[in-house]
Amino acid sequence: DLPLVLIAGPCQIESRDHALECAEALKAMAAAAGIGLIYKSSFDKANRTSLAGRRGIGLDKALPIFAEIRGRLGLPVLTDIHTEEQVHAVAGAVDVIQIPAFLCRQTDLLIAAGRSGAVVNVKKGQFLAPWDMVNVAAKIESTGNSRILLTERGASFGYNTLVTDMRALPIMAATGWPVIMDATHAVQAPGGQGGASGGDRRFAPVLARAAVAVGVAGLFIETHPDPDQAPSDGPNMIPLAAMPALIEQVKALDAIAKRHPLSIA
Amino acid sequence: DLPLVLIAGPCQIESRDHALECAEALKAMAAAAGIGLIYKSSFDKANRTSLAGRRGIGLDKALPIFAEIRGRLGLPVLTDIHTEEQVHAVAGAVDVIQIPAFLCRQTDLLIAAGRSGAVVNVKKGQFLAPWDMVNVAAKIESTGNSRILLTERGASFGYNTLVTDMRALPIMAATGWPVIMDATHAVQAPGGQGGASGGDRRFAPVLARAAVAVGVAGLFIETHPDPDQAPSDGPNMIPLAAMPALIEQVKALDAIAKRHPLSIA
Amino acid sequence: DLPLVLIAGPCQIESRDHALECAEALKAMAAAAGIGLIYKSSFDKANRTSLAGRRGIGLDKALPIFAEIRGRLGLPVLTDIHTEEQVHAVAGAVDVIQIPAFLCRQTDLLIAAGRSGAVVNVKKGQFLAPWDMVNVAAKIESTGNSRILLTERGASFGYNTLVTDMRALPIMAATGWPVIMDATHAVQAPGGQGGASGGDRRFAPVLARAAVAVGVAGLFIETHPDPDQAPSDGPNMIPLAAMPALIEQVKALDAIAKRHPLSIA
Amino acid sequence: DLPLVLIAGPCQIESRDHALECAEALKAMAAAAGIGLIYKSSFDKANRTSLAGRRGIGLDKALPIFAEIRGRLGLPVLTDIHTEEQVHAVAGAVDVIQIPAFLCRQTDLLIAAGRSGAVVNVKKGQFLAPWDMVNVAAKIESTGNSRILLTERGASFGYNTLVTDMRALPIMAATGWPVIMDATHAVQAPGGQGGASGGDRRFAPVLARAAVAVGVAGLFIETHPDPDQAPSDGPNMIPLAAMPALIEQVKALDAIAKRHPLSIA
Repeated sequence: DLPLVLIAGPCQIESRDHALECAEALKAMAAAAGIGLIYKSSFDKANRTSLAGRRGIGLDKALPIFAEIRGRLGLPVLTDIHTEEQVHAVAGAVDVIQIPAFLCRQTDLLIAAGRSGAVVNVKKGQFLAPWDMVNVAAKIESTGNSRILLTERGASFGYNTLVTDMRALPIMAATGWPVIMDATHAVQAPGGQGGASGGDRRFAPVLARAAVAVGVAGLFIETHPDPDQAPSDGPNMIPLAAMPALIEQVKALDAIAKRHPLSIA
Repeated sequence: DLPLVLIAGPCQIESRDHALECAEALKAMAAAAGIGLIYKSSFDKANRTSLAGRRGIGLDKALPIFAEIRGRLGLPVLTDIHTEEQVHAVAGAVDVIQIPAFLCRQTDLLIAAGRSGAVVNVKKGQFLAPWDMVNVAAKIESTGNSRILLTERGASFGYNTLVTDMRALPIMAATGWPVIMDATHAVQAPGGQGGASGGDRRFAPVLARAAVAVGVAGLFIETHPDPDQAPSDGPNMIPLAAMPALIEQVKALDAIAKRHPLSIA
Repeated sequence: DLPLVLIAGPCQIESRDHALECAEALKAMAAAAGIGLIYKSSFDKANRTSLAGRRGIGLDKALPIFAEIRGRLGLPVLTDIHTEEQVHAVAGAVDVIQIPAFLCRQTDLLIAAGRSGAVVNVKKGQFLAPWDMVNVAAKIESTGNSRILLTERGASFGYNTLVTDMRALPIMAATGWPVIMDATHAVQAPGGQGGASGGDRRFAPVLARAAVAVGVAGLFIETHPDPDQAPSDGPNMIPLAAMPALIEQVKALDAIAKRHPLSIA
Repeated sequence: DLPLVLIAGPCQIESRDHALECAEALKAMAAAAGIGLIYKSSFDKANRTSLAGRRGIGLDKALPIFAEIRGRLGLPVLTDIHTEEQVHAVAGAVDVIQIPAFLCRQTDLLIAAGRSGAVVNVKKGQFLAPWDMVNVAAKIESTGNSRILLTERGASFGYNTLVTDMRALPIMAATGWPVIMDATHAVQAPGGQGGASGGDRRFAPVLARAAVAVGVAGLFIETHPDPDQAPSDGPNMIPLAAMPALIEQVKALDAIAKRHPLSIA
């Protein structure tokens, strides 16, 4: 049981400068805490609640920024894709390809991601039981790719609300693949602001602490220098300035969790 | 308030002969009952629970079959698509393009479907509140397409279970777009058989009768000569032989519902 | 399959005059439509969301009013009880004793109600699956009482929200006991107004029509001359003036439903 | 922020010897770990899924056992009650009176418990949002009693399933009252075995660890020397022999959680 890895970054790439500012700050925080870091950012938000939501800078502008973060800062990079074409375009340019939750059952997309050779991180659909992720992973495994991550990000609970079932973490871990807790998307209120998703960032540390104490391979957190000004997911992102305290807490909890591994086998 | 239209057919095209047999039988039933019919069938099941599930005959083999059903039988045809490329490929070949529930938030797919000029039927995601469908429809409307259908097919309710909230029907109707009840997918037990979705076809008439009594523009029913032998969705499809009795019941209920239109405005 | 019976009345007895005014109006409506009527009213709201909610006139003042409604108007009366002592007190004074949803698993209360000799109507708990009501009914049956009604009134669906699963109606009917649809409590938003439950009466006809089309023995509707002034459940009660139109609709739907009985056996 | 307190014991009192055996074992474990202990046991299971479920030894036989555990072992005792009469009967005989989840909205019961002078622990109903517990506590506070505990034990999530929303813990804590996590009832599958509730004890440590890492005043755990032979709640009780390891884990997590208190204020 390896120590906790942090997957973090702003929801979307807003500009080269913004991306590098976030990446540098996170790199310093992770180094200070002595934990691993994967930088996360999206080039296209393809499923915004409404047309009015800003979608991002696009793939062409994102690729050189990914390269700079990998090259100059030495950070592995994760991004999410929505079509097979995007898989091919980002395959060599990032370390981890992420399948969005809504798309976690799209067979061709999973297989394309599997064939890319990148690590594949699949978000569990809000409509999926944790034990059904074994079928999702099997689609990727069928390509010979054995670097798969499974991410919890909340399940539908009535309307405009998600709930995180902590039992999902050991259930997914029983597949043998590392499990990640996405603590910021799990506090979304999907569609909860009419034309946009709401959320409540005060609860992200609640879910992060809980999941780490159960035992996870990694923690996924969206963070931003000024979340209330962010073009997407602002209500649930954590301010960059709050990250060091959260990292300290989860690092301490992780040490205990890894000393006493929980298993449901 | 126009009389109820039936959208029906087997889940997937199994062969030319099978498709025509189903289409002819349904055409005769609809004619006998004096109700409108749109023939539904899929050429590719792109999001099966597991890799082992059969996906269908593919688009190339499906196109001549769609043409024959439209040409020889004179039935309008509906099929579902999963990528923008498929939208372009089926645009002239079918009357209604259907957006699957898992994909109902994918902006580019909705816009491509809108631009095709076909009628666009969007299934409400299992993770979506009915009032959020107004944003989905707006993405299609932004293309100038004003032939949109919104379909209820159940909402996530705990694990491996869907529930149909009948309040969703007038809520979606308040958008102004015709609302369809998909009574067979709504009785699915998603992933409920481990490597496949289960379901319980005994409840499809329950949901069909309820929805028609509330008031809907159309009823979507998957049906098959021998559902237990079907390659997909067998547990929830209704046997073809049971359709005439169900059509008779919903036709009678529809007459009353349309005489007393319900509105929440 | 007998024709639909209506169980109706204001949520709580506000005064003798108010109760008689409602009862007379409902009696005239039921007579005009030719359907059976049971008058419903509560003497004590024992589980209000907050202490500030008005609880009702109490048992002592209610008993003569029940007697007058039974004697002078000739209507059978239903009321709900919360303790074994109340069962004994109302046993001879009403025709139907109702077990509230929150209390549907309290064994001693069910047995006391069973022993009273009255008809016992049990509301299904918001936390209970429909197939579990067979165990609830068995507790009453164990007393030798074979006059049992089972009522659907919605299931918990996330926070402050109920959803009515129409499949629950035939599932409960498979026990052999008559099934009632409570269309007004099912549109409650429990606790949805902070210190009181909210609701949306616009959806009560939606659920009433849906349930009757599926097939139920009776329809339970709370109604009031001026719901917005009612001391409890105002947001979901239907105005008395709207009852005749609703009765007409459900009577027509019931005739079709009873001609085509649905069974899941 | 005081250290974690353990509330533990077998679901029901099976006999004097059994109760004392459990109490002595737990006392030794708590002493070894240096944490506080309240002994929990029920004298009557008043809401079993079915009549066939064993209800317990009854109040008369329980009172001397409670006295012996308090007197000889010096442990505070918690038990649950279902009627106002039971409140009066146990008032002087136990330290904590517990209101069962199904009864958490019964005003008279809450007030009687408040007036008893005992500490009152209210389980949050499976049908209640965490923010609605403030109204429940206010009913008890109205009696002048200011020793109130609020307990999370899972929320309805579809049929026969509970889910624990860890956000409920800080939401309830914002009332100012200490919050307890009931980690064994929260893994129940209500009614999940037909005539009895199922459950899965493997997940109790998952929820216990998660809740303690978020921060709770106490942890409620039902435990038994041989859970598979227990007359109630066997599937979710933890074997006594597994308690020391769990106590060690939660104690370590609690130390970190209390050093970094989470607040949503």
